[in-house]
Amino acid sequence: MATEQQPSDADADSESPHAGAPDAYHDLLDRYRQVTYLNDSGMLLSWDQQVMMPEGGTPARSKQQSALSSVQHEKLTADAVGDLLDEVESADLTADQAAVVREIRREYEREAAVPGELVERISEETSNALPVWEQAREESDWERFAPQVETLLELKREYAEHIDPDADPYAVLFADYEPYLDLEVADRVLTRLREELVPIIDAIAESDVTLAEDAFDDEYDPDIQEDVARDALDELGYPWDHGRLDRSTHPFSTGNQFDARVTTRFAPDDPVDALSSTIHEFGHATYTLGLRDDEYGTPLGSHRGLSVHESQSRLWENHVGRSEHWWEHFLPTFQEHFPSAEDLSPRDAFEAANQVYDDNLIRVEADELTYHMHIVLRYEIEQDLVHGDLDVADVPDVWNDKMDEYLGIRPDDDATGCLQDIHWSHGSFGYFPTYTLGSVMAAQLYAAAEDDIDDLEGKISRGEFEDLHDWLTENVHRHGAKYETNELVKQATGEEFTADYFLDYVREKYGKLYDLDL
Amino acid sequence: MATEQQPSDADADSESPHAGAPDAYHDLLDRYRQVTYLNDSGMLLSWDQQVMMPEGGTPARSKQQSALSSVQHEKLTADAVGDLLDEVESADLTADQAAVVREIRREYEREAAVPGELVERISEETSNALPVWEQAREESDWERFAPQVETLLELKREYAEHIDPDADPYAVLFADYEPYLDLEVADRVLTRLREELVPIIDAIAESDVTLAEDAFDDEYDPDIQEDVARDALDELGYPWDHGRLDRSTHPFSTGNQFDARVTTRFAPDDPVDALSSTIHEFGHATYTLGLRDDEYGTPLGSHRGLSVHESQSRLWENHVGRSEHWWEHFLPTFQEHFPSAEDLSPRDAFEAANQVYDDNLIRVEADELTYHMHIVLRYEIEQDLVHGDLDVADVPDVWNDKMDEYLGIRPDDDATGCLQDIHWSHGSFGYFPTYTLGSVMAAQLYAAAEDDIDDLEGKISRGEFEDLHDWLTENVHRHGAKYETNELVKQATGEEFTADYFLDYVREKYGKLYDLDL
Repeated sequence: MATEQQPSDADADSESPHAGAPDAYHDLLDRYRQVTYLNDSGMLLSWDQQVMMPEGGTPARSKQQSALSSVQHEKLTADAVGDLLDEVESADLTADQAAVVREIRREYEREAAVPGELVERISEETSNALPVWEQAREESDWERFAPQVETLLELKREYAEHIDPDADPYAVLFADYEPYLDLEVADRVLTRLREELVPIIDAIAESDVTLAEDAFDDEYDPDIQEDVARDALDELGYPWDHGRLDRSTHPFSTGNQFDARVTTRFAPDDPVDALSSTIHEFGHATYTLGLRDDEYGTPLGSHRGLSVHESQSRLWENHVGRSEHWWEHFLPTFQEHFPSAEDLSPRDAFEAANQVYDDNLIRVEADELTYHMHIVLRYEIEQDLVHGDLDVADVPDVWNDKMDEYLGIRPDDDATGCLQDIHWSHGSFGYFPTYTLGSVMAAQLYAAAEDDIDDLEGKISRGEFEDLHDWLTENVHRHGAKYETNELVKQATGEEFTADYFLDYVREKYGKLYDLDL
Repeated sequence: MATEQQPSDADADSESPHAGAPDAYHDLLDRYRQVTYLNDSGMLLSWDQQVMMPEGGTPARSKQQSALSSVQHEKLTADAVGDLLDEVESADLTADQAAVVREIRREYEREAAVPGELVERISEETSNALPVWEQAREESDWERFAPQVETLLELKREYAEHIDPDADPYAVLFADYEPYLDLEVADRVLTRLREELVPIIDAIAESDVTLAEDAFDDEYDPDIQEDVARDALDELGYPWDHGRLDRSTHPFSTGNQFDARVTTRFAPDDPVDALSSTIHEFGHATYTLGLRDDEYGTPLGSHRGLSVHESQSRLWENHVGRSEHWWEHFLPTFQEHFPSAEDLSPRDAFEAANQVYDDNLIRVEADELTYHMHIVLRYEIEQDLVHGDLDVADVPDVWNDKMDEYLGIRPDDDATGCLQDIHWSHGSFGYFPTYTLGSVMAAQLYAAAEDDIDDLEGKISRGEFEDLHDWLTENVHRHGAKYETNELVKQATGEEFTADYFLDYVREKYGKLYDLDL
């Protein structure tokens, strides 16, 4: 990366998108950059805590994180920031500059609206809730976790009330994760998916076709799986001088355009799951690495929210990593590491990676169809919880009934039911819908990329990912947070955000797999 | 560590050393804690940069470090801190509380004297300088690194000027690392060592005695060496739930009382060097871990400067790890990992670990005698650099001439000469003398421990390190920064800081080894 640009604080360059803006704008931007740098420091501390830190380090790490949060809050909500925003909003700004100001205004308003004391209480309660959730899950005992959920719901309702007392509190919480798609849009998409996917799932359940479900039926040494994951990242073009792969309990990705790391995990009986997770996190990291180097710290060098982030991970995970073309390319590498797989065909691997489970209770193990029923269920439950229409004590029953209704299966216990996800212990109500929005957006973006790129599928089957990578960088990554979500999708695809492409994609894919006319 | 205490921000406990102090004191201490937490966040970022970060991450990391430095500076030098210091200094305080205020005052004065913008520039320049030093060392090209040294010298001179325009700038910089021993004390010790060690080194060079120099004459697989290092840390009592061992170019230790990590490096031809480095860093980490948990973030839970820190690493490295008693205990473990060493005796290993090299160019590979000549050389060169009496471009020549003068050898290139140490890339001019002060202090502390602990040498030869560990914890670690350096030494040993014990120790040790009457 010899030509890579350094982050610039000076904006002296006339080529800079910030050139020509008033002094107040530069002052504002400098302050914002400091907040980003502090935020990214906290993200590194968190990566370390999950990947490297010895367990005894927790008390000190909590203090460090809380000091960092507190100075970020202080810096972002300083009176001067409000004054500078007022001043620059009446100035003559370019589109880039106006976008920068819009983003800073939004973050400032949300952060300034909430009293520091409440932020601290939420942080404290989530710290307390995490080990309780872990324990409750281990004991499969929702009642044990329920008081924490109760408390966090109350605090998050209060939080939403501070931000906008007139709005639906769930919509306010959702906007923390996806600021520029209305909850109505999310609702429309989720409703449509429920309506259209359930018949497809039913048809598949009734189909006679048997996929190569047991294709990966051996024990797969995690250390060798890690070699496979590294080879996959190599093939996909992950730049090791700007990232790393490590193991953690929950796979995640974190970092900035200079250093975007991924983690994954390996189970001896499921090498496809680890590979999918790795490719998923690669998608996140490649988005982060595609942000403009010279805009590090500004909204133009920051991601556009969690739906878009998830669209990038899902695109690589599903449209690339779960395709037959991918397996045509990658299976020989897998077989080199695991000779027991030597008789598999790419079609076998493709089928094994895409079987629709009719008995899977766990969201993160779900296929691309039933996955969204897991999300719909959570979305409905947490909405009712936030609105006070559902007692926390009743969550297990409602959860199990809905699983029955949407997927025809019923968890035996809370551990494989309503206690399976970490999100509520973080107080992250409103986060789940971004997973589905990301999948839907991925399909729309991938369809547009297919239109623009000559023989994309052939390229994937030959391991040529550069054109796709370049397309995504140019149409998504390079814009940072310049456009609002829907506008970004429109710029990239020529159309408003829509679920059409996702539904077309799954109809075609699963129609072929199960020999059905969907 | 079931009984470990959490860091306490409340000081509500009447047992707390802060109980009964005026409100202003608590306010001051809370502010200081935040600064420590931010500082420790920066230390983690720095550990990551040296151990984990992909090399492309530097530009973003520099920004993060600089933002952290800047908020630390802002928090520590806030007007309110000055006002609170004025207020509490006239209050009735306990000895502990007075020590806390003394330490905060000292840091406040130094920090307030230096403009934030300069602090930020230094932080950014040191972040940038590190990869340049690495590259320059790889290419053995001082010229490549020289502009960075030039810049850092200028910035550090400016820094010293702000703190005390009337003082010797080198003395001002030295006080950053050792605030409570005057540079004159350091100078006296270094001069005495040069005078008294040179004749000893000469006598050894002329001695006919041949030590078992080639005892470790095989190739030692670095991965197996790492197993040996882990076993050594186990034996010494390193608590893995509060630390980790990793590899880095330059061994170091970092962290806090909850999480103190060590790094080391392994060369296939020198397993003793890696083991010594590991034990050295263990000494640092064990000091850090011995600080009071409930005082995390306060001066009572912080170390007493670099000389004392180094006394702990040197005590374990030299007085334990280079003793014949250690090898009586540890050699069998080493031999288990490296069967080629099966014929070695503890005496052989002891001799090999203590040979006085007459051809060693590398400070960190030096024996306990010539080591201090390496320090004297650096001390003289960096003093001249800071005073402007030596051009940066001339460093290689002066370095090589002094090596010739003091040790009778001349580096062939810069990599094994003036580019060998990382310190100047950190802008750490004035740091080196603390290494010698630490060795000297280690000998004094060890002599006192020997007086207090029954059969200490026997215990070491049986792998019983607990009494020594407890003695150091009780007499050094638990006091944090309560006492000034000399006072701490006096409390622990009953005497003022002196080089007598160090000189007695080396005379006895090397007299026996080389059969000389020193």
